[in-house]
Parts: sequence; C-alpha cells; structure tokens
Amino acid sequence: SMEKMPAFLNGTCRVIDLSADYRLKDADSFETWYKTPHKNPANLSEAVYGLPELHRAEIKTAKLVANPGCYPTSVILALAPVIQSDWVDPHSVIADCKSGISGAGRKANLGVHFSERNEGVSAYNIAEHRHTPEMEQELSQLTGQKINVTFSPHLMPMTRGMLSAVYINLKSDIGLEDVMSHYHEFYKNEPFVRILEPGSYANTKYVAYSNYCDIGLQVDRRNKRLIITSAIDNLIKGASGQAVQNMNIMLGIDEKTGLDFPAIFP
Amino acid sequence: SMEKMPAFLNGTCRVIDLSADYRLKDADSFETWYKTPHKNPANLSEAVYGLPELHRAEIKTAKLVANPGCYPTSVILALAPVIQSDWVDPHSVIADCKSGISGAGRKANLGVHFSERNEGVSAYNIAEHRHTPEMEQELSQLTGQKINVTFSPHLMPMTRGMLSAVYINLKSDIGLEDVMSHYHEFYKNEPFVRILEPGSYANTKYVAYSNYCDIGLQVDRRNKRLIITSAIDNLIKGASGQAVQNMNIMLGIDEKTGLDFPAIFP
Amino acid sequence: SMEKMPAFLNGTCRVIDLSADYRLKDADSFETWYKTPHKNPANLSEAVYGLPELHRAEIKTAKLVANPGCYPTSVILALAPVIQSDWVDPHSVIADCKSGISGAGRKANLGVHFSERNEGVSAYNIAEHRHTPEMEQELSQLTGQKINVTFSPHLMPMTRGMLSAVYINLKSDIGLEDVMSHYHEFYKNEPFVRILEPGSYANTKYVAYSNYCDIGLQVDRRNKRLIITSAIDNLIKGASGQAVQNMNIMLGIDEKTGLDFPAIFP
Amino acid sequence: SMEKMPAFLNGTCRVIDLSADYRLKDADSFETWYKTPHKNPANLSEAVYGLPELHRAEIKTAKLVANPGCYPTSVILALAPVIQSDWVDPHSVIADCKSGISGAGRKANLGVHFSERNEGVSAYNIAEHRHTPEMEQELSQLTGQKINVTFSPHLMPMTRGMLSAVYINLKSDIGLEDVMSHYHEFYKNEPFVRILEPGSYANTKYVAYSNYCDIGLQVDRRNKRLIITSAIDNLIKGASGQAVQNMNIMLGIDEKTGLDFPAIFP
Repeated sequence: SMEKMPAFLNGTCRVIDLSADYRLKDADSFETWYKTPHKNPANLSEAVYGLPELHRAEIKTAKLVANPGCYPTSVILALAPVIQSDWVDPHSVIADCKSGISGAGRKANLGVHFSERNEGVSAYNIAEHRHTPEMEQELSQLTGQKINVTFSPHLMPMTRGMLSAVYINLKSDIGLEDVMSHYHEFYKNEPFVRILEPGSYANTKYVAYSNYCDIGLQVDRRNKRLIITSAIDNLIKGASGQAVQNMNIMLGIDEKTGLDFPAIFP
Repeated sequence: SMEKMPAFLNGTCRVIDLSADYRLKDADSFETWYKTPHKNPANLSEAVYGLPELHRAEIKTAKLVANPGCYPTSVILALAPVIQSDWVDPHSVIADCKSGISGAGRKANLGVHFSERNEGVSAYNIAEHRHTPEMEQELSQLTGQKINVTFSPHLMPMTRGMLSAVYINLKSDIGLEDVMSHYHEFYKNEPFVRILEPGSYANTKYVAYSNYCDIGLQVDRRNKRLIITSAIDNLIKGASGQAVQNMNIMLGIDEKTGLDFPAIFP
Repeated sequence: SMEKMPAFLNGTCRVIDLSADYRLKDADSFETWYKTPHKNPANLSEAVYGLPELHRAEIKTAKLVANPGCYPTSVILALAPVIQSDWVDPHSVIADCKSGISGAGRKANLGVHFSERNEGVSAYNIAEHRHTPEMEQELSQLTGQKINVTFSPHLMPMTRGMLSAVYINLKSDIGLEDVMSHYHEFYKNEPFVRILEPGSYANTKYVAYSNYCDIGLQVDRRNKRLIITSAIDNLIKGASGQAVQNMNIMLGIDEKTGLDFPAIFP
Repeated sequence: SMEKMPAFLNGTCRVIDLSADYRLKDADSFETWYKTPHKNPANLSEAVYGLPELHRAEIKTAKLVANPGCYPTSVILALAPVIQSDWVDPHSVIADCKSGISGAGRKANLGVHFSERNEGVSAYNIAEHRHTPEMEQELSQLTGQKINVTFSPHLMPMTRGMLSAVYINLKSDIGLEDVMSHYHEFYKNEPFVRILEPGSYANTKYVAYSNYCDIGLQVDRRNKRLIITSAIDNLIKGASGQAVQNMNIMLGIDEKTGLDFPAIFP
C-alpha cells in the first residue's frame, strides 16, 4: 500500500491500512525486517498504530491508521497492563503464539494443503518473524525503554483463531489476585477485552468469529514469572474486525457498531 | 500401580510401569504434586526413570522401569544436551508444550468432546501440571543443581502428537552452528532422536505413529536465548513406544525391534 | 416435552417445541420409532410441523409448532419441489445424509470423543433412524400417497453442518435445465433457500452459522436419476435458527429478523 | 503412463501401473471419460485389473497390472458378492462415496486449502466422475450384463480414508442373516476384507494406514433395499497398499508381506 498511499492522503480521504506498510515508525526497521526500502517514509510519522486500547484518542482524528498485525494485537494486549509496572522485568518477554491456518493467507501452496496441516503442529520463523518489530515498537513506547521480544509463531490445525502465551519475569513477589485487579482496572472501559477468572485460560473457541480478546492470567510463584494467555480470532480482532472498530472510532459512532455480538459456539 | 507393585517385584518379574507412580524418587514431591501419600516409598529408589537416552545402562538391568510421561520426554530430550553446559542459565527454563487430545486419555468427558475441541486451542494447568516435577528431577540430576521449570501445557485440535518449545537463556554469545554440532554429537548414537536442519522446526506430522523425537534449534541472538522445539507422538515415544524401547533394552535385543519404521505421512 | 405440554397449552402460551414429541401426527408411528407410548396424543393434531417453506400459513396462527429435526429439514427441502411432480417415482427415494458431530448432542460419551471422531467417517442406524418417519410423513402429505424413504445417516469429522444427497428415479427424460427452473420457481419467495448454479453442489462450509439451505442439482441421464444435494447448518436451519424463523412468522414480524446475515467463511 | 508403457513391456519388465491408463479395456470408453484418445490401445487387452479379490489368478502371471482407483476398489468390493445373485436388481446401483482430502492429490490449489476444506463436506462431479466406468466394467463382467452406476463422490474434512455407501434394490425378501453368511463365504479366504457384525457399519478410522477393507451390511426390509458400507484407506488399499499386494501375488510370495499389521488407532 505504500505506493498508493500518497495519492490517497492527498485528498480528503481517511485511510485504514490493513497492510504492514505503515505500522513501523522507523523506516530503517522496516527495511531490516521486510528486506526492502520503504517507499513512502514521509508519511510514517502521520500513521497511527490502530490498536484502540492504546491509541484511541489519536485514532479518532487520524488521517491514516495502520491496522495492527494479528500476532502483535494478541501479544501487546496481553502485556500492556503490566509491562510498564515495577512488578516485571520488561527485558524478559517471551511470546509463544499459536495461529490457525487462515493466518497464512488464502494463496494455495503446499504449506496450507489440508493433508499437510491436519494433525500437524509446528513452529516457523522463530526469532525472525516480521511481526516482532511491531510488538517491540509498542512495548518500547509504553515503557520508554528499548524492549526486545523473543517471538515464536506456530501453526495449528484449525482455521481461525490465535492463542498467545506470554512469559515475563516478576521482580517482586506479587500474587495472582493483585495482577488480576490490575488487569481489570486497566481494561475496565474496553468493550472487547475480557479478563478470565483465575484458573481459566484463554481458548480460541470462545472468541471465534468475534472481536473479543480474552485474557487469562497465572503467576508461577516458584519461578517468579507471570504467564499471560490471550486469545483472539485472527481474522476479526486480528484483522478486519479491528479495522471496523477503528473506523467506528474515526467516525465518532458507537465503537461496537457491527461488532457487538457474542462469539459463536461451538 | 503402587498398590500392586510390591507383589509384582516379590518374584522374578521385571516391570515397566506406564503409570506415574514410580517416576519421582522423592515421596514428598509425589505427595505435593499428586495430592495423595505414596503407598510404596520403599521401592522408589529401585525404580529407573525409563528415558533410554539418559539411563540406558541402568534400564538394562532394572527390575522396575518407570516409563516417562509424554511432556517430560519431549522437554528433557530437548534440554539434555545443553542444560549442563556453560552456555546456558539452567534456572531460566520455560517449556511451552502443545499436546493432541489423545493425551487427555480415552475417558469420555465434555472436555474432549469433538465439538468442544475442534477449532479450539487452549492452555490448562499452567505452572501446576503434575509432569513438572518429573522434568525438574531429571534436569536437576543432569546439572547437580535444583532446577525449576515454568511449564505451560496446551491442548491442540488434533488426535496425536506433542510439540514442545523450550526456552533457555544463553550466558555466552554462542551461535546456532555450535549448538547444532553439540546436539548432533550428544545424540549421535541414538536411534530415535533426529536433529533437524537449521531453519527447520519440529512438526508433529513427521513423527506421528513413530518412536522418533525430532529436535529443531534456533538461537535468538538479539535476546541471547536458545529455543529448542521437539516433537514426539505422545502415544508412541511419549508412552507405549518408549515402553517397547525399554523392554528391548531390558531383554538385550535390538533396541529398535518393533519400532524401526519411518513416521507415517500424511 | 410431551409431559409438560398440556400445562403450557392450557393458557395463552404459544409454544415452539424443539423436541421430537409433536412432529409425528400418528401416535402409533411415534411408539414404533421411539419405543415408548406417546403421553399426550390429544394434542398431536393441534401441532403444526414447523417447516416454513411448507406450512407457513398454519404456523402463523399455530398454538403449538413442532420444530423439525435436522435430517428431515434437509431432506424434505431437497425433495419438496419435485416429489409431487410427474417426473419422478416417489417410491424410489434414498437419502444419504452426513452430519457434523454437534448433531449428536453435547452429552459426553466415547462416541463423540475427539480422538474417536477425528479422521473418522462412518454410518450409523441405517434404515432405523428416528428421523425417518418425519420425512415420510411430510413427503406423504405432499404426494397424497404413503411414501417410504431409505435413510442412511453418517457422522463426519466436523463440528457443524449437514449435507444430504437425495436420490430419486426419473420417470421421464427431463433435463437439468427444466429441473432447475422448477426449483427456482418453487422457492422463489423463500428467504432461506438458495438454488446453486449447474455444476455446483451444496457445501456445508457455505451455510455454516446461517439459516440458509443450499440446494445443488444434477440429472444422471444415463441412469434416469435426479440427485439433489442440500446443505444446512444443523444447529441453525436444522434447529434454533428455524425456531426463530417460526417465531417471527408466529409474531407476524419480518421472517428474517435476527437471521438475515450471510454465512460465515472460512 | 500410456506413453512409456510400450517401452517397458518390450523387455522382461512386469509393471504395476498406478495411473488410470490401463484400467479400462475399451479405448472408446477411455476417450469418452478422459476426453483424450488412448495412445496405446494395443496393450489394453494385456492389462489385468489389479483387484486381487476378483483377479488373483490372472494377476499372478500378468505382465501389466492396472492398479484400481480408490473409489472403484471400495464400491466393487462392496458389491462383488451380491451383484451376480438373484437377490438383487443389478441395474439399481447407487454409490455414495466419501473421500479424505489426500484423494485429491498433493498438488496445491485452493480446493485443498485447509481453511476451505475444514468444516466442509461437499459433493463434486456427481454422475460425471472418471472412476465410474471402472466400476461399471468390473460389475458388468461379474454379471454378464451392461451395468450402470450412479456415482456421487464427496470430499470430507479428513486426510485419509474413504467410506462408500452402496444401495441396491432387492428382488426377494432376503434377510440380513443370509446376506451376511453369503458375504462371509465369498470373502472367507481374503486376508484384507473384514465383514463387520450386524449393526456395525464401516468406519474409516478402523482401516486407516492399513490395507483392510471393512464391510458393514444392512437390509432395509421396508423398502427392499440392501445397503452396503465399505471403508478403506484411500492411500493404502485404494492405492499403494493394493499395489504391494499385487506385487506380492506376482512374485509368488505371501500376499500379506509388508501389509500384515492392524490398522492404527486412534
């Protein structure tokens, strides 16, 4: 989209871009991860990263919204409440993410053949996936420090859904109850984030076809680690649903318009 | 099995126990994790933990072999070559494991209903699963230190297979090539462990119905972490296949007897 | 529901019954297929079989609507346009039906265990399934003759959806084009029946989560047979969606209320 | 393969051909169904149709064996015992067949994309599939009459396996017990055909990865129809396993060599 964007922005158009072209603020970082120079660096600073839970105010008036990737949506929402707190070491983040096959796109190739994926769980692009710098940019902005993430994406034998397990070291002996209160408080006004009960962990089944992000929490006291699980539908909150949410915010209408229905089960 | 074992061992019987009763050397640890006192602590020291790659010599002459759990098999095989090296911090282990539904047993309950699991990926028992102390016991023995593990089990919508992604911090700036040589050397005589090429990660599809454990490696240099992926068939190398392997060793016959066929695909 | 129905009907209540108790007009037939006497035969004549495409007028004023079974919905909609025509032999009907696992209910039993159903396609209750007399009752009413059906239900490794292939012998040398025109005409005012293009056959994927019934047609001229494929979501048009459609009709509001959205894909 | 076959047959080679080129005896029929003229009609009469249960003696000495298609294998084995009997009308055959996705080949195209097939059951090529004349050739040879078949192939969301439900009209009031005895007798010496108990129907799960063909029987007395269900693994008995069986016969070694293991479950 970086080739056509200047023309779009030249008029009165407001744009929500589902591609990855305007998600990174830094043209060098874009070139490093995408192996090609950015063709429209001038507009990078104009773009707002379209995660409503973090940037709602800017989205409202943005001319260009860069709709987030699916993996970053699930990982950033998992970490946002806690990454800036004194409880955790922000330099210890590991994100182990599991995606349904629709995340690989609709293009036919052997890698998405039913017989190759069914009964198959596998990792790919460990520590090399292009969604890594998106996560790092947003987490760095939240903390005011350069944050790195170890990111391992996996493909699962299902069509839709994404589950992330995010690990971060605790610096203090905080308990699950306090962490939960903090997450509830942080997301108390968010229509699409749900904090699960203690002992319940996120399940892609319960967010499929919806714009919800479910978050389940656990404290591993023996190892002083916080484990956050988050589930989204990679095609809704991880793509088009989030774009609709952004559009609603930009238009000043109810943010839930067209999205306010429960997840489908089974 | 701890109720019947004394009778079995009283004669000339040699036993391979597929239950969890004799895997832990420490009766207190058993009680802590299994919430019930051990009924036959006297025989715990006699039992050999039946992971041939670590305990082949003892298995050969053992009267009682405790066949390992599926999760510990995949995690211990992933870490064994490196946990005792100077390269890593053995106190930083995180194991994010994904199991097929057959791992939950054949008992009918709502949690294994097709319509509940299909299109569903979820975590359970994070930091509380009973397979944790098995991993810790074996890793501690390898290092001579008390090792803890943060362990997150997940259920995947497939019947068979288990994929583990194991994370450990690097203390030195070691490269992937050296790590790979080390793994190749460590497992060079093992008939059922295969080290994958750089850039390839373990996939449950390629070990299904076989006794193989596939191991894929990646070094995240930016974050100084080693990520090891390992795949087994939870019902073969993770259960009955490993029992057959142990039986072959105990009988002094070719270890691959009855197990020496490639994995089935697709 | 036959135990509580007299009380319900005693007041001003209007009832849509999702059970099978009031679908058959004939109490003897009920006893034959359900192996238990009917407890409220007095109200059988009052009940309207809730298939809007056949009984819309009666549903509108009905006090008691018996919501159809999933298999009968898909088979009756497939045959209704043609069973009463001179083109076919109404005594030659074979219905080969394939259902997702949710059709078996949510009760946990070994038969719906993920590991038992995944990668498994099988038939059950051939020529003995309780939905048979429902199909026969409605087809008999349409033709004014006693119609029998050979019905073979199957379970498929998927959660939702039902595909029926219905076979009927042709008495005349009619072509596909004429059959298609006839089906289009028959269903021209139906909001939830879609006739597919020649060469396209019904696919559960395209009706999942919707109230649609898709119908694909083929004429086997060599064998003088008509093959009709029909697809529904067994939980929507095959159950609760049809109940909502019936409710809308009973209330005199737009029949599509709450149901007027396309099927979800993928 | 019809281009290279003359060269192969020119020497001492004996060939098992997995392609469809030599399955049909009649070059015209080949051209009709495959839309291309046959390039080596001279060798058609030499080829033996490689279904051991029907042609074992000829296979033994054959120079060229045409390995059957997967659909014809399952349908012919279902009908062979009964098609030539007085009990049935051989002109009333309907075969409703369900195949796993591996039957569509390994070539990547949108039609086999995981996200297109998962949760999707659909029919294709009804009354037009190229495997039809294979079935008809063999059934005609068994009966000495020209037999036609109405054949409806379907794709199921699973990797391996094929289930056929075959319908044929009964001319006499024969019972299930007699039909079962007849099938048992017909296949009594066959190592790879198993007749299931009354009330049990074929299930792809129980033949996966094996060379077995399971057959389940039901008589619909109300409608005077026999329904035969047969299950094979489309890649084993439906392809390479049957080729191995043929090779064993040609070599005069035990027919079960390399194939004599039970089906894998789950």
